Amino acid sequence: MKKHAFRITIAMLVLSLFLSPTFSVGQIKKQVGYPEGYRQWAHVKSMVIEKGHTLYDSFGGIHHVYANKTALEAMKDNKPFPDGAVVVFDLLEAKSGGNAITEGQRKFIGVMEKNAKMFNDTAGWGYEAFKGDSKERLVKDPKNECFNCHEAQKKNDYVFSGYRK
Amino acid sequence: MKKHAFRITIAMLVLSLFLSPTFSVGQIKKQVGYPEGYRQWAHVKSMVIEKGHTLYDSFGGIHHVYANKTALEAMKDNKPFPDGAVVVFDLLEAKSGGNAITEGQRKFIGVMEKNAKMFNDTAGWGYEAFKGDSKERLVKDPKNECFNCHEAQKKNDYVFSGYRK
Repeated sequence: MKKHAFRITIAMLVLSLFLSPTFSVGQIKKQVGYPEGYRQWAHVKSMVIEKGHTLYDSFGGIHHVYANKTALEAMKDNKPFPDGAVVVFDLLEAKSGGNAITEGQRKFIGVMEKNAKMFNDTAGWGYEAFKGDSKERLVKDPKNECFNCHEAQKKNDYVFSGYRK
Repeated sequence: MKKHAFRITIAMLVLSLFLSPTFSVGQIKKQVGYPEGYRQWAHVKSMVIEKGHTLYDSFGGIHHVYANKTALEAMKDNKPFPDGAVVVFDLLEAKSGGNAITEGQRKFIGVMEKNAKMFNDTAGWGYEAFKGDSKERLVKDPKNECFNCHEAQKKNDYVFSGYRK
């Protein structure tokens, strides 16, 4: 009887590890990867968001959008993005002076990675942001911090930027 | 005697063709090529030039600089550019409104192409500009329209832009 109870305890312990939200393997799998080399991906488009804009607090500065090959092809063909597509929103400080706006320090990069199965809670896209030039993750709640706004772009497969010629 | 005179005439005719400034083969060789696919080259950096800037008349708008692989490697290593390096200055209208600056129509692209032998009059760089989205050439006098200003950047092999991380 004792042996049987011990076995059940072990089984429950193993099961609880797999079900735990802090179980490391499960968590790593759900993370968006850092987009190594994105600065040499295709440059999709750019924009400057200035003081007074409703998005200034979150996205004020000059931003450039980059797409990896998979994302670029989908953008150009105006098709849904396949798994593996990655889009980067690269936000830098915009320094005004001398009748010019120049690029300052990086504030963060925002990353969208398509994996229909892995990120099925947020329509197949994983969302993350990395602070400055670091790999420090900033997004705690992708659904509320990212997806709720991107949802408005459902007809463009949740991506705001289209490839500019 | 007649035969001899005829031969001299032919020789002079051929020679004059080669020396003529309008001789087509010679001219084509000295032209900077249109940088096909440059929009997917590495994005080096960007800047907005606004009204009141001394360069506004020539370069007002938002510009992005792109480098082909050869140029990018030289930029990153801070070395002189080898033959084959191409740098593109892509100038778009900057549309201000709603506390944001967005990209408008393309004004022109400026192109620098390195070929030490071909462009030895202008320190090894050929200069050209193409109007809007077309292949209409705009530069008549590369030395006065382009090189005289780039000469100030001799220490950077005549290129203004450095690769931004």
